[in-house]
Amino acid sequence: MSRFFSSRYDALSPYTPGEQPQDRRYIKLNTNESPYPPSELAVRMAQEEAERMQLYSDPDCRSLTAEAAKILGFSDRELIFTNGSDDILNFAFMAFCDETHGAAFPDITYGFYPVFAALNRVPYREIPLREDFTIDPEPYFEAPENLFIANPNAPTGIALPLPLIEEIVKSNPDRIVVVDEAYVDFGGESAAPLVKKYDNLLVTRTFSKSRNLAGARLGIGIACPSLIRDLQTIRFSTNPYNINRMTMAAGVGALRDTAYFKECVHRITNTREQTVRELTALGFTVLSSRTNFVFAKHPGIGGEELYLRLKDLGILVRHFTIPRIRDFNRITIGSPEEMQALVHAIKKIL
Amino acid sequence: MSRFFSSRYDALSPYTPGEQPQDRRYIKLNTNESPYPPSELAVRMAQEEAERMQLYSDPDCRSLTAEAAKILGFSDRELIFTNGSDDILNFAFMAFCDETHGAAFPDITYGFYPVFAALNRVPYREIPLREDFTIDPEPYFEAPENLFIANPNAPTGIALPLPLIEEIVKSNPDRIVVVDEAYVDFGGESAAPLVKKYDNLLVTRTFSKSRNLAGARLGIGIACPSLIRDLQTIRFSTNPYNINRMTMAAGVGALRDTAYFKECVHRITNTREQTVRELTALGFTVLSSRTNFVFAKHPGIGGEELYLRLKDLGILVRHFTIPRIRDFNRITIGSPEEMQALVHAIKKIL
Repeated sequence: MSRFFSSRYDALSPYTPGEQPQDRRYIKLNTNESPYPPSELAVRMAQEEAERMQLYSDPDCRSLTAEAAKILGFSDRELIFTNGSDDILNFAFMAFCDETHGAAFPDITYGFYPVFAALNRVPYREIPLREDFTIDPEPYFEAPENLFIANPNAPTGIALPLPLIEEIVKSNPDRIVVVDEAYVDFGGESAAPLVKKYDNLLVTRTFSKSRNLAGARLGIGIACPSLIRDLQTIRFSTNPYNINRMTMAAGVGALRDTAYFKECVHRITNTREQTVRELTALGFTVLSSRTNFVFAKHPGIGGEELYLRLKDLGILVRHFTIPRIRDFNRITIGSPEEMQALVHAIKKIL
Repeated sequence: MSRFFSSRYDALSPYTPGEQPQDRRYIKLNTNESPYPPSELAVRMAQEEAERMQLYSDPDCRSLTAEAAKILGFSDRELIFTNGSDDILNFAFMAFCDETHGAAFPDITYGFYPVFAALNRVPYREIPLREDFTIDPEPYFEAPENLFIANPNAPTGIALPLPLIEEIVKSNPDRIVVVDEAYVDFGGESAAPLVKKYDNLLVTRTFSKSRNLAGARLGIGIACPSLIRDLQTIRFSTNPYNINRMTMAAGVGALRDTAYFKECVHRITNTREQTVRELTALGFTVLSSRTNFVFAKHPGIGGEELYLRLKDLGILVRHFTIPRIRDFNRITIGSPEEMQALVHAIKKIL
């Protein structure tokens, strides 16, 4: 760091995105992207909008809000859009956490939560998952901090049943509960309808996974109007034009194209079940996944070694060096052909 | 605000973007957009990239950095890209300012600076412009705070000569000097080459004005490698994928299409000079503009009244309620036809 860098960030260590090596062509199963192209309608709408790039986008995101209200069933005052869902998570840390309002989240979860906490100088506590990597709800009841729960969780892929999420929200009326539903469309149960009932719940979603728009960067927050107002205050104090014209149009198209969305999700969950069967047959322990990835380990080979051997063979998966999960790899569900290539490569390695 | 909103933001009042009323078609001279479409190459490249939206963009922005390095003459370690230049300005407040490292900027300047200061709880001081709205450089020498100087300044349009900028940078070796060059291509002198000589200078630019990409959201920071590293730490701790695929491609295209860039700038500065002559002939005081807008007042009509009367006639200009400038309006330079419509409307009103 330079001599000018603020001491505010002494405890900050930035997030490490999944690698994107450029040395050769890889089968990319490491960043939970969709193996299917974006909706044709989304592409066409984004392309049309590209011709008007000289004009600012609408800071009120009216077209997108109207479409989302219709498709998702929330009023415009219950919705906010951000430049990817990382943005809305950061806004939640900014708006609701501070030196005296800390944060808590599982010890094994999305790696950006501790980064956002450090960035915003928010004290945080990591609550251990059970031995089987499920969330024990007990420590989340009447918690002293705001809570951040990825549901389904990442990188485990395991979902917490909705009644338990509701109990957590209900038992913390003076804390914010953020439920990060990046992967919910692949088999989780959404807590979003509960925002009508609880004023302390923020649900976040992304267009990156189930809507095939990782490269467009579009996230969404769903909450009661008073929380949305706070988050809009943050948005209008950082970057009111945070959603560019093409992404806004692509988002409208992706929401409107419900049939294609359902088809892609259906295909991916089918491929996931097939992949789980094949990996299990090969001797892997595979956690129960409600996402577009599986988290798996094998008694015969270390997680890092498998990751490196697969990379040698042109297949990228994600390995984390955190001790508790270093035997595992997170493997994105690609196309059936890509998963066959994976299984074939693993057989060769084992 | 909700009962959950952090007291950190008690002093925060969000930025107000230029209005985008939807009730009728307006001639929009209120947000300093280009009257010309984006480069055809930029559009084509963005459109091609839209078909790959299911894949994350490159967090290292390699294509964009390589093109910018070539066209602008800086190494990749001297460049950072952000979601509009508001983002890089906010990053500068985050990285280099804090409770003990305040900020100073002119009393009349880009209205987002005090918002960023309040957002990041940075004490700030506003240094009055001279009576004629030029910057008096004296108070900027050996300043006790980091400095934010829009050059040319907005909404005045007035530029500070480069030797004075260099003197300010040189006299503040232990402060960061941010020179916000959003409008520099319309007749200012860029301080960017000075980053090779001074480790305390950050120059920010935008693709919104002279590169016709306001709706794509692309900003750029130019500084010595150690400052860029700090800003990348902030970027990778907030949103490593902050630039989406389409915008990244559009940026490459816009940089590559130098001829079109020059042609648009040339046309806009010509129209500006014509507009200045016509407004002056009508009795307006017009500040000397090096930007794509003019800042003008008329002895016969108040600024707000003129703004409202023009809006009635279907023409939007930007009026600010700050007492020192409330007689003025900021008028974006549109196409020659749009400016004729403006002059015609003003004649009617007067």
